[in-house]
Amino acid sequence: MRNIKMTLAYDGTRYNGWQKQGNTVNTIQGKLTDILSEICDEEIELIGSGRTDAGVHAYNQVANFKTMATFSLEDLKKNINKKLESDICIKTAEEVDLRFHSRYNAVSKKYLYYIWNHVDINVFERKYSCHICTALNINKMKEAADLFIGTHDFRGFSSDSRTKKSTVRTIYSIEITNNNGMLEILFHGNSFLYNMVRIITGTLIEVGLGLTDIIVIKDIFQNKKRQAAGYKVPPHGLFLNEVIY
Amino acid sequence: MRNIKMTLAYDGTRYNGWQKQGNTVNTIQGKLTDILSEICDEEIELIGSGRTDAGVHAYNQVANFKTMATFSLEDLKKNINKKLESDICIKTAEEVDLRFHSRYNAVSKKYLYYIWNHVDINVFERKYSCHICTALNINKMKEAADLFIGTHDFRGFSSDSRTKKSTVRTIYSIEITNNNGMLEILFHGNSFLYNMVRIITGTLIEVGLGLTDIIVIKDIFQNKKRQAAGYKVPPHGLFLNEVIY
Repeated sequence: MRNIKMTLAYDGTRYNGWQKQGNTVNTIQGKLTDILSEICDEEIELIGSGRTDAGVHAYNQVANFKTMATFSLEDLKKNINKKLESDICIKTAEEVDLRFHSRYNAVSKKYLYYIWNHVDINVFERKYSCHICTALNINKMKEAADLFIGTHDFRGFSSDSRTKKSTVRTIYSIEITNNNGMLEILFHGNSFLYNMVRIITGTLIEVGLGLTDIIVIKDIFQNKKRQAAGYKVPPHGLFLNEVIY
Repeated sequence: MRNIKMTLAYDGTRYNGWQKQGNTVNTIQGKLTDILSEICDEEIELIGSGRTDAGVHAYNQVANFKTMATFSLEDLKKNINKKLESDICIKTAEEVDLRFHSRYNAVSKKYLYYIWNHVDINVFERKYSCHICTALNINKMKEAADLFIGTHDFRGFSSDSRTKKSTVRTIYSIEITNNNGMLEILFHGNSFLYNMVRIITGTLIEVGLGLTDIIVIKDIFQNKKRQAAGYKVPPHGLFLNEVIY
């Protein structure tokens, strides 16, 4: 028995997210599981580092599976990529300890969100960024971003705010950089609640537009009310950038 | 009467090229002409700096048209962009001398061709670059590129090699840069024959793969035979980058 860890990139545009569930068709996990089961000639259980929602992309998602198949890692990677359509790609495959689990062993994650802040559409990045045509006050956004750093109860910044599980998470850093109008927001945290990155980004945008005062963020940490936080930005600007073990 | 010069970007993926001709549907010139005629409430003749083929993109195509309409340039740009789909965008609009003609007055042009040189697919750039999975010898390609610089008869590097018109052109520079596997080839010339950039790029790739010797390029300039030159690379890696007046 071998345990294979893979990193993979995908353009989430055409997919109903990562997770294969019930009757949901066209998921990335579903596509990969079918191909792996066929190649390995056994039923494969593919474990991802976590879900990504419909339309969300990944530069480096991590997933692992156990198999009795004996082919080389290079052949495995080549055979999977040959069967995949061009919007999913296995970047690396390595054999790891049998106890390795993509989700349980993940120590932290990095997500990127892209905002095209320009009066005109960006025709080449329109599927990979959220277009905000009014000028954003980036200094204000950076000031607001700093309030999220650290260990907090992020219940107010999640779509699943009625969960009975803990909603305490730690954000290590939020870096905002501006590349000629393409804002890149890099989030690094131990883990993220459902839609947390997209709601925090929406809140930062509302601050950047002057629609929300920074003080409101402190209030949301107090009262934990989702309604007070910013809108949920669309999925197509979001990329799972890295899973750290 | 005013003469309006526009620069525009387009993702050529969905289009049958720039030029509106006969029954060809879904051309960029056709879309724009319809929208301009509607906005200006008169029949508009739109003059582009030159054609781009089906599937070719533009960062900065230039086109001009004459109109009696009196609205501001800002309103004009806004109104056109509102009616355009998100894969075409007017970037600038300015009033120019009535004698200005986008094609006749173009002094030189710059084209970019992108090659993703990596064993794996690039899922995010797959529609905007040509994938070559075998390692290219970039130094050899640069050496070959230098042979194209200057004034030559490029008949052997055109799809229209039986034309009675002059096929002498001047290439000022060909710059090849490698950004982590994404090769960018920037062509600057006074004008280009039909498919010339794509055939020269194909020739450079064949040299880079060791399939063609550099000496062959000199032969083609001598015997002007299209068959001897490299293959025509696909349109989706090509961008009209700049038109210089």
